[in-house]
Amino acid sequence: MSFLGALRKSPLFSGLGRRSYTPPLSVSSMNRNMLGVQYEVRGVVPQQARRIQAELQNGSTEYPFKDIIFANIGDMHAMGQTPITFARQVLSLCMFPDQPDGTFPPDVHERAKNILDACSGRSIGSYTDSAGLALVRQDVCNYLEKRDGRPVDLNRLFLIAGASQGIRVLLQFFMNGSGQHRKKPAIMVPVPQYPLYSATLTELGAHRIDYYLDESLGWKLSVDNLYRLLEENKDEYETLCLVVINPGNPTGQVLTKDNMKDVLHFCQKNNVFLLADEVYQDNVYNSDRRCYSFKTILNSMGDEFKDFQMAAFDSTSKGFLGECGFRGGFMEVVGFEDDLLAQLRKIMNTKLCPGTTGQIAVSCEVNPPKEGDPSYAVFKQEKDTIMNSLVLRAEIVRSRLNAVEGISCNPVEGAMYAFPNITIPPKAIKEAESRDLSADTFYCLELLNETGVCVVPGCGFNQAPGTYHFRTTILPPEDLLTDMMDRIERFHNSFTQRYS
Amino acid sequence: MSFLGALRKSPLFSGLGRRSYTPPLSVSSMNRNMLGVQYEVRGVVPQQARRIQAELQNGSTEYPFKDIIFANIGDMHAMGQTPITFARQVLSLCMFPDQPDGTFPPDVHERAKNILDACSGRSIGSYTDSAGLALVRQDVCNYLEKRDGRPVDLNRLFLIAGASQGIRVLLQFFMNGSGQHRKKPAIMVPVPQYPLYSATLTELGAHRIDYYLDESLGWKLSVDNLYRLLEENKDEYETLCLVVINPGNPTGQVLTKDNMKDVLHFCQKNNVFLLADEVYQDNVYNSDRRCYSFKTILNSMGDEFKDFQMAAFDSTSKGFLGECGFRGGFMEVVGFEDDLLAQLRKIMNTKLCPGTTGQIAVSCEVNPPKEGDPSYAVFKQEKDTIMNSLVLRAEIVRSRLNAVEGISCNPVEGAMYAFPNITIPPKAIKEAESRDLSADTFYCLELLNETGVCVVPGCGFNQAPGTYHFRTTILPPEDLLTDMMDRIERFHNSFTQRYS
Repeated sequence: MSFLGALRKSPLFSGLGRRSYTPPLSVSSMNRNMLGVQYEVRGVVPQQARRIQAELQNGSTEYPFKDIIFANIGDMHAMGQTPITFARQVLSLCMFPDQPDGTFPPDVHERAKNILDACSGRSIGSYTDSAGLALVRQDVCNYLEKRDGRPVDLNRLFLIAGASQGIRVLLQFFMNGSGQHRKKPAIMVPVPQYPLYSATLTELGAHRIDYYLDESLGWKLSVDNLYRLLEENKDEYETLCLVVINPGNPTGQVLTKDNMKDVLHFCQKNNVFLLADEVYQDNVYNSDRRCYSFKTILNSMGDEFKDFQMAAFDSTSKGFLGECGFRGGFMEVVGFEDDLLAQLRKIMNTKLCPGTTGQIAVSCEVNPPKEGDPSYAVFKQEKDTIMNSLVLRAEIVRSRLNAVEGISCNPVEGAMYAFPNITIPPKAIKEAESRDLSADTFYCLELLNETGVCVVPGCGFNQAPGTYHFRTTILPPEDLLTDMMDRIERFHNSFTQRYS
Repeated sequence: MSFLGALRKSPLFSGLGRRSYTPPLSVSSMNRNMLGVQYEVRGVVPQQARRIQAELQNGSTEYPFKDIIFANIGDMHAMGQTPITFARQVLSLCMFPDQPDGTFPPDVHERAKNILDACSGRSIGSYTDSAGLALVRQDVCNYLEKRDGRPVDLNRLFLIAGASQGIRVLLQFFMNGSGQHRKKPAIMVPVPQYPLYSATLTELGAHRIDYYLDESLGWKLSVDNLYRLLEENKDEYETLCLVVINPGNPTGQVLTKDNMKDVLHFCQKNNVFLLADEVYQDNVYNSDRRCYSFKTILNSMGDEFKDFQMAAFDSTSKGFLGECGFRGGFMEVVGFEDDLLAQLRKIMNTKLCPGTTGQIAVSCEVNPPKEGDPSYAVFKQEKDTIMNSLVLRAEIVRSRLNAVEGISCNPVEGAMYAFPNITIPPKAIKEAESRDLSADTFYCLELLNETGVCVVPGCGFNQAPGTYHFRTTILPPEDLLTDMMDRIERFHNSFTQRYS
């Protein structure tokens, strides 16, 4: 036995060990960046909502309502949306291919066969290329070519496990750079923003430059504001990346073509990478306002944009599919030199591959049944029902919220959320302070406790100082949504009165 | 228009911009840690293999073989293993529930119904709790309770998107700590190791302390060695975490009970967190050597272990399921204070949820059909066929490799890999140097080019200096595996002769 071996078996050594075990991991010793992360979409209000729901399910009669309305998260199926039959049939058949022809429509059998042929060992249980099945990426190429007007290189497409995963990987590329010719890196993020960005940047220890969207102009993105912030920060920070969420989350606005051109010019002139979060591209409710992808606009720009770098993200969790549970999506990278692309591919390799279910969902999203296909009629009817109802619901939310004294809400042009401005009386702000809560968290908790409506306080998305908001989805079915608006209206009036 | 707005529209400004666009992201400016990551499992040799495969599929007759044998990755389905019928039927039905009773056996319908009842909106397309469906976690609790001998708290279980994802999150907790009472954090990792660890730690910028497994003793883990390394590094580093892979990847050894106790004592005495990578728990081929989980052993230890911290990982990609494409798995954390657990849950919240397909696969893995269930007979026959064949294949690989002069291989007691030691002649080492390749990479590329066998060079897993290895899976079907062994034998002999 070695000296150390003998030492550790001696009573002295183990006696010391016995008295002194200190858990190596604790809140006081853990990663400080992770400790600083906040994520209110699944934070204090939704957690309280789940507790109440459990009590209700156990027969509690303590609350003046019978059910919780979960309007905190953009989850269409949870709110009762029926899955798209074509996608589910393809997936069902890929899962268990040993079913006779004719079990499903012929185009379902054909799609499933093509997918299985593309899988190693003809099983969706095998790993795929870390960028996803080439077959599905080809579907995406065809879709993007049609949408954006130019051919897309298959090798610049990556299927991802939901947009969040891809965005996280990409943002990480900007951290901890070579340091020789750089100031501290900074990323520009909208306010209000989807908290994936604040959470990820906090986790990475990155500096965030907040650019405020103008609520008084329908959450307009002011490019002058971007120039100003760049200028103000330029001594200390190098702004490497601009995040644009279009349609906006939680704000629901859709950018105009001119606005997007200005954004591209800003990035091009200042060597800023554009991260285009376009997961709500298909969720547009204002018939006057077409939603363009940044790639479409980029393709229309001049020669000085030929090396332009950007990445765009889409997800199967949103759009008409709403298959959040499948964790599917794709990312297109633009202007990456081959060696940089190889680095991105290497990092994706360490993540093995996105789940095959999500990959198949991508195929069904970008390459759905076409006119003449056996599944087309059902598909079209299902998709139209979903999209028409969303248009209606976006308008219900806007109009009902604006009808309440002390609430004002911009139009929900796209995405699945409204982010109304709420007037909170000074007495309520004081009360919230005394409970160590932000005023809008207090408001949302009271709303939950009194009405069963679960929304997320605006502080979880950041907001202009002194303003208060909440984010609600527009996803409850129409009758439930109307009920929810009734509850919010009653609550807001009584809350305002109580604290006046 | 603001001053800045005017400035950016002036010809001077845009003219300057036009001349000077520098892509913000490049290999020279990107994250240095990410740049340093290596991941050979999908690296140079497998990439070359895919290129050759594409050429063969396009009719090339340039190679002295007709097919590539992919023995580089632990992917059972890719190598022809048939999926477990029960799991696939449950998944198929969850995907498309609108199928009459009797489509599948009654226990399949029952399982699918229970899962759908547990999903929001009765759809597996909705988000689940970020820790996974409580129903599935309860299945895991029951499984672990039976395996490890003590009840498990549902709240300490997290379903994850494959073990890799969970391991990455956990390792990140050790980085960037409070810094007040700490030296630089270090993580102990075996050599050879699965490169997820080296890749992740490089990406995190963490210090890795390599502990060598003893090849001459069947890749034994020497705990004396751990004490020695801790001592040697203690002035500069605080060893916070020890990674143990059991059964070993790429090494295939299974730890003895006594060895595991010694590991636990080492961790307990030195406040080192134990990360137990147990994804190959069900892949054990030596009938004399039972594979224990660390939790089982921990449960047998004395009072001084009551606060002991560890985390254990399992995956649906391995075991008898082999469903790599579904990205399922689970993690149990032990000894986490409530506030620390809340931090872990918060971070998992930002990742939304693991894919539901993987979650359902976990349910089928840990709670398969039982004796008396309608699906039991088929399940048992399928599982036995897989496991018996793996036992046979483990022995084919070991015995055939050892029969080659200049190759020696420890028994494959578990996991799915052999990591044989290869003697490479000095002339070949020189030739490799002249091509700027490591000698084992050169060997593996030559093996690929001459025989179509794709294995991964030992350098991708780290190895003792001056030794050379490759990792091969034991997964090709028996006849193909024999063919592959023939090819390796012929190649090794001719390679040795050529460079002697």
